Amino acid sequence: MSEPGILPSFVKGAWWTPDGAEAGAALVTDASTGAPIARVGTEGIDLAGALDYARTVGQRSLGALTFHQRAVLLKQLAQALTERKAELYELSSRAGATKADSWVDIDGGLGVLFTYSSKGRRELPNAQVYLDGAAETLSKDGSFLGRHIFTRLPGVAVQINAFNFPVWGALEKFAPAFLAGMPTLVKPATPTAFLAEAMVRVMLESGLLPEGSLQLVSGPVPGLFDLLRLGDLVAFTGSASTAEKLRANDSVQTGGVRFTSETDSINASVLGPDAVTGTPEFDAYVKQLVTELTAKAGQKCTAIRRAIVPEALIGDLIAAVRARIEERVVIGDPRAEGVTMGPLVSAAQRTEVLRQVGRLVEGGGELVLGGLGQPTIVRADGSRGAAPEGAFVEPILLHFPDATAEAVHTVEAFGPVASILGYTTTAEAARLVALGGGSLVTSVATHDPEVARELVTGIAAYNGRVLLLDRDDARTSTGHGSPVPHLVHGGPGRAGGGEELGGIRAVLHHMQRTAIQGTPDMLTAITGVWHPGAAASAEGPHPFRRSLAELTIGDQVRSASRAVTLDDIETFAAFTGDTFYAHMDEEAAAANPFFPGRVAHGYLLVSWAAGLFVDPAPGPVLANYGLENLRFVTPVSPGDSIRVALTAKQITPRETDDYGEVRWDALITNQRDETVATYDVLTLVAKH
Amino acid sequence: MSEPGILPSFVKGAWWTPDGAEAGAALVTDASTGAPIARVGTEGIDLAGALDYARTVGQRSLGALTFHQRAVLLKQLAQALTERKAELYELSSRAGATKADSWVDIDGGLGVLFTYSSKGRRELPNAQVYLDGAAETLSKDGSFLGRHIFTRLPGVAVQINAFNFPVWGALEKFAPAFLAGMPTLVKPATPTAFLAEAMVRVMLESGLLPEGSLQLVSGPVPGLFDLLRLGDLVAFTGSASTAEKLRANDSVQTGGVRFTSETDSINASVLGPDAVTGTPEFDAYVKQLVTELTAKAGQKCTAIRRAIVPEALIGDLIAAVRARIEERVVIGDPRAEGVTMGPLVSAAQRTEVLRQVGRLVEGGGELVLGGLGQPTIVRADGSRGAAPEGAFVEPILLHFPDATAEAVHTVEAFGPVASILGYTTTAEAARLVALGGGSLVTSVATHDPEVARELVTGIAAYNGRVLLLDRDDARTSTGHGSPVPHLVHGGPGRAGGGEELGGIRAVLHHMQRTAIQGTPDMLTAITGVWHPGAAASAEGPHPFRRSLAELTIGDQVRSASRAVTLDDIETFAAFTGDTFYAHMDEEAAAANPFFPGRVAHGYLLVSWAAGLFVDPAPGPVLANYGLENLRFVTPVSPGDSIRVALTAKQITPRETDDYGEVRWDALITNQRDETVATYDVLTLVAKH
Repeated sequence: MSEPGILPSFVKGAWWTPDGAEAGAALVTDASTGAPIARVGTEGIDLAGALDYARTVGQRSLGALTFHQRAVLLKQLAQALTERKAELYELSSRAGATKADSWVDIDGGLGVLFTYSSKGRRELPNAQVYLDGAAETLSKDGSFLGRHIFTRLPGVAVQINAFNFPVWGALEKFAPAFLAGMPTLVKPATPTAFLAEAMVRVMLESGLLPEGSLQLVSGPVPGLFDLLRLGDLVAFTGSASTAEKLRANDSVQTGGVRFTSETDSINASVLGPDAVTGTPEFDAYVKQLVTELTAKAGQKCTAIRRAIVPEALIGDLIAAVRARIEERVVIGDPRAEGVTMGPLVSAAQRTEVLRQVGRLVEGGGELVLGGLGQPTIVRADGSRGAAPEGAFVEPILLHFPDATAEAVHTVEAFGPVASILGYTTTAEAARLVALGGGSLVTSVATHDPEVARELVTGIAAYNGRVLLLDRDDARTSTGHGSPVPHLVHGGPGRAGGGEELGGIRAVLHHMQRTAIQGTPDMLTAITGVWHPGAAASAEGPHPFRRSLAELTIGDQVRSASRAVTLDDIETFAAFTGDTFYAHMDEEAAAANPFFPGRVAHGYLLVSWAAGLFVDPAPGPVLANYGLENLRFVTPVSPGDSIRVALTAKQITPRETDDYGEVRWDALITNQRDETVATYDVLTLVAKH
Repeated sequence: MSEPGILPSFVKGAWWTPDGAEAGAALVTDASTGAPIARVGTEGIDLAGALDYARTVGQRSLGALTFHQRAVLLKQLAQALTERKAELYELSSRAGATKADSWVDIDGGLGVLFTYSSKGRRELPNAQVYLDGAAETLSKDGSFLGRHIFTRLPGVAVQINAFNFPVWGALEKFAPAFLAGMPTLVKPATPTAFLAEAMVRVMLESGLLPEGSLQLVSGPVPGLFDLLRLGDLVAFTGSASTAEKLRANDSVQTGGVRFTSETDSINASVLGPDAVTGTPEFDAYVKQLVTELTAKAGQKCTAIRRAIVPEALIGDLIAAVRARIEERVVIGDPRAEGVTMGPLVSAAQRTEVLRQVGRLVEGGGELVLGGLGQPTIVRADGSRGAAPEGAFVEPILLHFPDATAEAVHTVEAFGPVASILGYTTTAEAARLVALGGGSLVTSVATHDPEVARELVTGIAAYNGRVLLLDRDDARTSTGHGSPVPHLVHGGPGRAGGGEELGGIRAVLHHMQRTAIQGTPDMLTAITGVWHPGAAASAEGPHPFRRSLAELTIGDQVRSASRAVTLDDIETFAAFTGDTFYAHMDEEAAAANPFFPGRVAHGYLLVSWAAGLFVDPAPGPVLANYGLENLRFVTPVSPGDSIRVALTAKQITPRETDDYGEVRWDALITNQRDETVATYDVLTLVAKH
């Protein structure tokens, strides 16, 4: 059999492969058959040049785009990958992934791109600066404000991935970095680098990627950390021990390089005291446990390692898990029909997993299901038998009679391995969860809100995610082991201490928060959002007559004044049916601590304000789609009069529509210039 | 002169002092006169016991309180300290602080308590769980949701402070920890531990502190880090080199202990190209530079170390600074009348500062103002002369002809020392700022929004805070060197990489973010906030008839249905003046991409909804003070009918009023059960 070629890297805008047959290159083989796939090595690669390319060319090309423009590209990249999904699925099976496993990795990865594209456009401005929190008034006269902004880090995002989800793992780091405007240098894990390479190739061939925004190093990165500096970021997924070594680098410790890690953790799943045998929660728990044990052959940092169950239910649970495994689980080459569980990624990984199982047994665990030998499997051709050339392991369940044994809370077998621990009180169950020293996720099967509340209170601080499983969400739950792009992925302590995903939160991890202090004019200039007190212009045509292209921040309409009479209040009450006593009954209203007597309805005021500021004829303003942050500040009595100032505050053109959003600052004042109400009016406005 | 006593510590609920005359105790002396003040030592202190006390007793007593209850205590503590401010001012002068310096430290510290008390009540729920972001729908049918919550860390907050602001520095760390519900163990710096001790004593004597919520270690904490574990947190302020050593501890590197540091940085102040001699910006720049040079004798981690000015203005700037110093600065014992600048905190600190000035000179700096000798000062008795027993240094200005010299961007003289660097383009000015490797703050004097925008874009990622100074905020600016509790304090890289303050942000640094997944019912149970889809009850009396004490989350009113006619729309248009064409002109409305034809005003719908859900008679509901997140989803045409469901979503009793806030979920639907509009109604409701 001839040696396979060395996987190319993509750096400095071009594909690159080491010269000649590299001695140090690692051979990667098929997980089920041992057949060679590729060699992985990077001898002679110019890492310094790649980093510099990202920091200059990549920063420049991404910096020319707004959040929304980057978000649109993410969607297009997802579409380009979707078109060539079949190639990726084929390669994925060589790593031992079943169709279901590949779906999690590949379609899951595409889902991350789609979600970030959508969230980027819905939750970020179509700009380059992100505003964090409200403006803070720092001087009595309002001439000095403070506001937090996020701007992108000026360096490169180095993403070091684990072998188990080469597509999802790469895309869940790439998407937020890209959206933030940071160029990526991705380094896949050796055993599945061939799949990551294929994915990057498809992305590059789409022609969508801005120059320098994505580079790939297919193999080792010796000395990389010495080249990093303030403004760069490392996102690492893998073992806790590797994370420890990387984090110890000077560039991280004192050089200001951000380092975030997501490491395997000893995740738990708690069966609530109410979820006894025969309840839908018991069944859902068993089903979930078997799924987590067998999906991806248990090679998931989020897999359940500790099943924490009421002491009295241990026997029932083992029996139920055994029955479900016998009924459902077919181990074999993922290319064979009917196989539901593939091999581990490599023979080395199999050896390592069995070694860790040995440590668990030594530490007090008793094997109650599965064993350490070669399981009978289904080969690609449908035949059955042992397959020593593949990395197969059967599902293994241990029971620890001593639930506080150290091994079960500290040793991880990164395969289809879980341990059962008994508890008697929910407080004890919470303590057992915490013994894991920080986890990515803990699930709790209970239908009792009190049990859920007590457990969550006790365990939340030790977990990045907690999933509550019961009869009402058993079918719709996304699952214990599945991070979703909307929610943070990561956990404290043993889980690495980092946070990924969580929607826009992960984008902000690639940006620097800075407090900006200055006048309303300066804050307006820097944020692109009008701040009360900044210059405003009521000159020229009514702002409702201006298209998005013509409208400018600060364009304003100041209305005439309109007097409110008792008759108006009564008319409004009769028309709306809102006869709340504060509007109708002088004596009762005056007895209310907030009103001088009968006052106008708040809804009357905002309705009138619309009548005062609107320019009614057809024009660029298409619709008022909402209203935010309305506060009624000063009550309006009969005899008072109101007027309104409406000022263009934020303009958000849509990239893929011929209109966009305009947020208007609305300020209603009375005849004494007191603030009556403040709010934001949200409109859709045509681009031209 | 007899040896002064050893400063006591407060641990495990009692005052504690080392046995006998401790050999290792350090002597602290008066900064101006060298007179002994106290000795500082902790030989034999039970740190493990103190930590354990915090984690058990402190966690329990703080855990019994809500955010608002803790916030009220912060205000009361501030009031207790205010009453005994004079004692603190007296002690502060011994550390070399002028009245103005002490005001920053002491009144500034009280300001932090007041601000956190106020923000805690306005921006946090009256509960123990903080909700982060919106709920995410994770299943099509809405039965599976995700939401992020923050719960407090289960350990102790160790706060290690710098010598320069013993009161403010301690309180700015204590307030957010306390509000989060984390017990504090505070370790002041030796030179000013006597002032921190006095402050803690006043706080304890107030009787307000929950048991175990505040402990004080007056002196060294050897071995402390080996005792820390997951759930604990260290907040450090001081030198970058000490931060580096502390951060290297295993408990931080692999044990999951959170570590945040705020270290001295080489902050910059840029004079904009427009701010030429004679402009108000030039004057404001000079004034600010002299203030930062002399306040606290320049011993501020936020002080200006690099004055980055247009090459052509260097001469003018030096002359203006010299003139202002000659006119305004009087160095001396802060107890003497008229003194505006005190000594450094100690003779050791004076030696260190002069050593660093030497390094700056060696690195290319030329002395253009001040010198290294003993300045003539004003003694406490009003006499003038040299005072070698005090730690006096005069303001020192250097000029670096080579603006990129390494020393000026890396060497910090932590005293009244700044260096002047010339630039020619704003891009160059931004690059010079970045050479500092990460700063707490950079200020920019300019009246040109374009200059501001360009500089901020270039420097924001290298700074925790950027202050824009011009003629419009020169009088109201809180100043380059003054962190405010509303805005984050901290910066990337050299500045330590941490964040403190920033309002509620700092509270959240003491909590763990966890993604919770489950049904609407479970999320409601865990958060205390009603989620759409969770159980709701329309039984019993109208919810407007229920006081805060009687009302429960999920209490609901479902209104009758009401038909909308064209006549209603026209009546409303006539009454409000809102004759927008989408309501009035069938043809034009139908041409609009969002409307089928004429539709009802959004304001009509929410006004009617109020009429449909209101219970008008006087009762516990006192006022509708606002409305949030209103979105119009489906337009309402003549002939459609609407109804509304109003559900109690969040109940926030006020600690110091006899009413509280109730947030109601409002859902308007049409006759086809489509969502017409969603929003939150905000009301004030009486407690009884």
